[in-house]
Amino acid sequence: MAPKYAPSLRSRLAPFLLSLQIGFVVVCYFYVEIESNVNGIKFSNLYPVFQDVNVMVFLGFGFLSTFLVRYGFSGSGFNLLIAVIGTQWALLLNGFESWYYRGKIRIDLNSLVVAEMCTASVLISIGAVQGKTNPVHLILMVLLEVFGFVLNEWLLQTLLPVRQLNFIMVLHIFGAFFGLVLTWILYRKESFQGFEKEKLDRKTELFSMLGTVFLWMFWPSFNSILTEERLSAVCSTYLALAVSAVASVAISALFSPKGKVNPAHFQSCILAGGVAVGVSMPAIRYPWEAMTTALAAAAVSTVGFQYLKNHMLFAFECHDTCSVLSTHGLPGLLGWLIQLLLQIQQAIRFAVFHIYALLITLATSLTMGFLTGVLLKWDIWRPPQDKKCFDDQAFWKFEHLAVRK
Amino acid sequence: MAPKYAPSLRSRLAPFLLSLQIGFVVVCYFYVEIESNVNGIKFSNLYPVFQDVNVMVFLGFGFLSTFLVRYGFSGSGFNLLIAVIGTQWALLLNGFESWYYRGKIRIDLNSLVVAEMCTASVLISIGAVQGKTNPVHLILMVLLEVFGFVLNEWLLQTLLPVRQLNFIMVLHIFGAFFGLVLTWILYRKESFQGFEKEKLDRKTELFSMLGTVFLWMFWPSFNSILTEERLSAVCSTYLALAVSAVASVAISALFSPKGKVNPAHFQSCILAGGVAVGVSMPAIRYPWEAMTTALAAAAVSTVGFQYLKNHMLFAFECHDTCSVLSTHGLPGLLGWLIQLLLQIQQAIRFAVFHIYALLITLATSLTMGFLTGVLLKWDIWRPPQDKKCFDDQAFWKFEHLAVRK
Amino acid sequence: MAPKYAPSLRSRLAPFLLSLQIGFVVVCYFYVEIESNVNGIKFSNLYPVFQDVNVMVFLGFGFLSTFLVRYGFSGSGFNLLIAVIGTQWALLLNGFESWYYRGKIRIDLNSLVVAEMCTASVLISIGAVQGKTNPVHLILMVLLEVFGFVLNEWLLQTLLPVRQLNFIMVLHIFGAFFGLVLTWILYRKESFQGFEKEKLDRKTELFSMLGTVFLWMFWPSFNSILTEERLSAVCSTYLALAVSAVASVAISALFSPKGKVNPAHFQSCILAGGVAVGVSMPAIRYPWEAMTTALAAAAVSTVGFQYLKNHMLFAFECHDTCSVLSTHGLPGLLGWLIQLLLQIQQAIRFAVFHIYALLITLATSLTMGFLTGVLLKWDIWRPPQDKKCFDDQAFWKFEHLAVRK
Repeated sequence: MAPKYAPSLRSRLAPFLLSLQIGFVVVCYFYVEIESNVNGIKFSNLYPVFQDVNVMVFLGFGFLSTFLVRYGFSGSGFNLLIAVIGTQWALLLNGFESWYYRGKIRIDLNSLVVAEMCTASVLISIGAVQGKTNPVHLILMVLLEVFGFVLNEWLLQTLLPVRQLNFIMVLHIFGAFFGLVLTWILYRKESFQGFEKEKLDRKTELFSMLGTVFLWMFWPSFNSILTEERLSAVCSTYLALAVSAVASVAISALFSPKGKVNPAHFQSCILAGGVAVGVSMPAIRYPWEAMTTALAAAAVSTVGFQYLKNHMLFAFECHDTCSVLSTHGLPGLLGWLIQLLLQIQQAIRFAVFHIYALLITLATSLTMGFLTGVLLKWDIWRPPQDKKCFDDQAFWKFEHLAVRK
Repeated sequence: MAPKYAPSLRSRLAPFLLSLQIGFVVVCYFYVEIESNVNGIKFSNLYPVFQDVNVMVFLGFGFLSTFLVRYGFSGSGFNLLIAVIGTQWALLLNGFESWYYRGKIRIDLNSLVVAEMCTASVLISIGAVQGKTNPVHLILMVLLEVFGFVLNEWLLQTLLPVRQLNFIMVLHIFGAFFGLVLTWILYRKESFQGFEKEKLDRKTELFSMLGTVFLWMFWPSFNSILTEERLSAVCSTYLALAVSAVASVAISALFSPKGKVNPAHFQSCILAGGVAVGVSMPAIRYPWEAMTTALAAAAVSTVGFQYLKNHMLFAFECHDTCSVLSTHGLPGLLGWLIQLLLQIQQAIRFAVFHIYALLITLATSLTMGFLTGVLLKWDIWRPPQDKKCFDDQAFWKFEHLAVRK
Repeated sequence: MAPKYAPSLRSRLAPFLLSLQIGFVVVCYFYVEIESNVNGIKFSNLYPVFQDVNVMVFLGFGFLSTFLVRYGFSGSGFNLLIAVIGTQWALLLNGFESWYYRGKIRIDLNSLVVAEMCTASVLISIGAVQGKTNPVHLILMVLLEVFGFVLNEWLLQTLLPVRQLNFIMVLHIFGAFFGLVLTWILYRKESFQGFEKEKLDRKTELFSMLGTVFLWMFWPSFNSILTEERLSAVCSTYLALAVSAVASVAISALFSPKGKVNPAHFQSCILAGGVAVGVSMPAIRYPWEAMTTALAAAAVSTVGFQYLKNHMLFAFECHDTCSVLSTHGLPGLLGWLIQLLLQIQQAIRFAVFHIYALLITLATSLTMGFLTGVLLKWDIWRPPQDKKCFDDQAFWKFEHLAVRK
């Protein structure tokens, strides 16, 4: 008989978190300082966009996954926890070069934003393993994935003559495929019959709707924050989001004999336009390009959500809780392809680099995801039993439940 | 016996949405481009306020109507769908003149904001027919109402020597009366006994509270985004919102023998100050003017909510789900009246134009609402049966319900 | 036998609110005007940060306290009501000097922000008496506490050579201790066995999570809005919040034999870093200082939450609903202490003033809280019976409940 309680994390979680955090503080003591030479105007222009990105990273991604009836606290709470660890870790890793040459890492708003971009790829990956991991797994994962992300960044800039990295491309594709390999390695037989607690209800889905709408609304900030031509990025993303909202509702209604919309499609696929246009941004010049990209992305994403999720499960033993493949993976690849097509007219040479950029990113993502998965499979991290998957009670202590006993 | 299921929208909704969206993309391909001559400072100053307006339009209006127990997804989801269709359609219609003279429509942040203002009037009207329409109705409605709004704009600027249009005035009054005529034409006998599913519960009302607070908080952004004197608009709206919150709680408590506050009053009437001051903004110079306007608007709105809703239903066969008349109609008219009174001292000539502006707006709104209503009454759009009114399940496919069967 | 219904507030609440609001309008008529000499750049830079602070004050504090199953409307609705009364009252009190010398009070974005800071201290205090007061109590409380806050400000600036007031320090410490004295005076025996309706459930706690995340995200705006060196304030607060999130999860897991996290710890203690760093901001120069402060603050706050809440109740008859002592009081004192330690090296003279500043603030806070408590204990304000504590139905009129009867 399966044990009644989830295994205790007391001896793993608390010491791990505390020593990690104290380690970060010690490194900061020696090597980190705040930029003192501030450009006031640039700061004031960037700050509101930075806050929009914060809303997406800390609230949007977390609340997107509150649809699980018994996993809302883990969805939203661990998202925040992982995001803050990832951001600190990325700040240090991204500052490595600066530390090497000048002995100090200087942080400003820009380095915080770049660090959150690295972290966002982890938050995407978490969607694939949502509910089947414990917080210790997630912390290991954020450390390895951010490391992989920065490694990939370094590979791209060393091997290819890329001046400016397309962070948006890398984060969607790296995040999605890292997550897929990870959930493939962490496969459990229970996925086959369905987990007891992997279910939704009307009110938790409304919370999820809230997360979706916040992500959807602020996506133009996400796609424009690191570019020079902000107006163009904002307008393209705005129109793309509009088109993908309309298209995914239409296609979702097509799939249902009664012409009904699937809330899960609404919650994932209306974002596809933002993903695809973000990835192909450097090549997009006209509104119709952004809108066509979004139309294709929403179609691919909705079709993928409808058919691929189960297919992935049965054919490849890959249980992708939040359909990361359809939400970030496919639209990301499509955006990459569209950028390639739009730029190939200009220069074959550029296209070759562009293809290598994808291959390197995919290779790093899959390799790091595989290694992380192998590490996480180890029983020392006390994975939750199948019965305790998708259950907040494994990790959160509810006073109101304690009282009733 | 009434059929058990709502009529299938598959053959209507998906082809309609897809062809509409592809039509928009094709028009954009030929005629739309992004403004290339960007004023960086103006963009940076406008962008955060633009995002506040986005929060109101895409999240606030949608979540305001999540109070209906079984209609939260339609309330929040269709709001977003209609908003993006309306914004694209308004972008094209507003760009007609520019297209006529220069062959191209240029979009920038300002044109997106103006398009959202046109759309906001539709979101207000939807409040009146909430729950008694299907998404095909809503799409027809957004197309006709945005057309009517732009027509009214053109009439005002052609017939009257108005240089700058008071968008805020037009959107509240146009939206409210359009919605009222529409719901009057779409009247169903079921309204008389009350719809089976038109009900609230504690938790869905908390979602609604969230929508209200977002609308309430960002209203100063809404009222100030298109004005020159932003500080004055922000301070006036801020104080007006404060006053109308206090006043509507007070008056709501007066109506209850136990001195209790009606959450519905709280959710609608605290916004009345923002509506009235937005409409009368051009004439408001001192804080006390804004505050007095707000006090009167909150009183009118709360009294209207308490008595008019049922009266409208029984006397005029007009079932106004979200009390659009009390939330936007009456405070809008009051704001118009106050602007008239404040400006009449200055010039009789101006006052005459001001009166004509209201009359033209009302006439266009009521006529367009009437025509839209007649069109929507047609059974070809497959209206939901009375039993399926206010029911998400008519339009959304819930996985968790499918499983149980 | 206890009466079935809460006492009617009709004769108290409505006239009180209306006469208060009309009084404010009358004062505004004579003495208040909007600043006409606007610095456009400063306005545009400040406006987005002002909106972040609005989200915290009107939405964050309110939704933080929606965790109570039957008290969500009072938590979120009365928070907004009290905030708008407090802000208007603080605008007038803060403008007293300007009125005295120039006959007019000029309001601009800065004076609104300062007024909201005064109000924030009231919203903190309300956390301590949440659920055990009626709205009339809360209105009396906001009037007296804002008066006390402004009095304390005046005392500090008159008695000490302080040029710029550390609003953040004063608001946390003043607010927390005012609330504690107040709840101590308003002690009810029922607190001992626990109130019937003081309970949580999973979904109301998710609303509370939403409030927490909004507070957490925008805290850098709160701490930086009134400082000159905004980048430094933003980065320090950002890192401090990250550290306190990690540390409070770790310590919360340590307290549980199963290594689980207590959602209540998550909702309060992850904010401790923002509080402590806000208070000690003037002395913080390096990231590690902010991070160490946050680590200590999260530890103190989590330990305080775990042990002090019950201890305060049983030993001192002080029932602190939202654990204001651990969330604002202790981290505030700790931040004050760290600022003292960091500055004492620089100048003994400064440290003496610093100590006096705390003593004066504490003395004013405790005295005003005591006096307010004595006033509020009076039965004329119709306090809710113990059975009606933590019950929305005492103050809100739910249509859906009325229908069922």
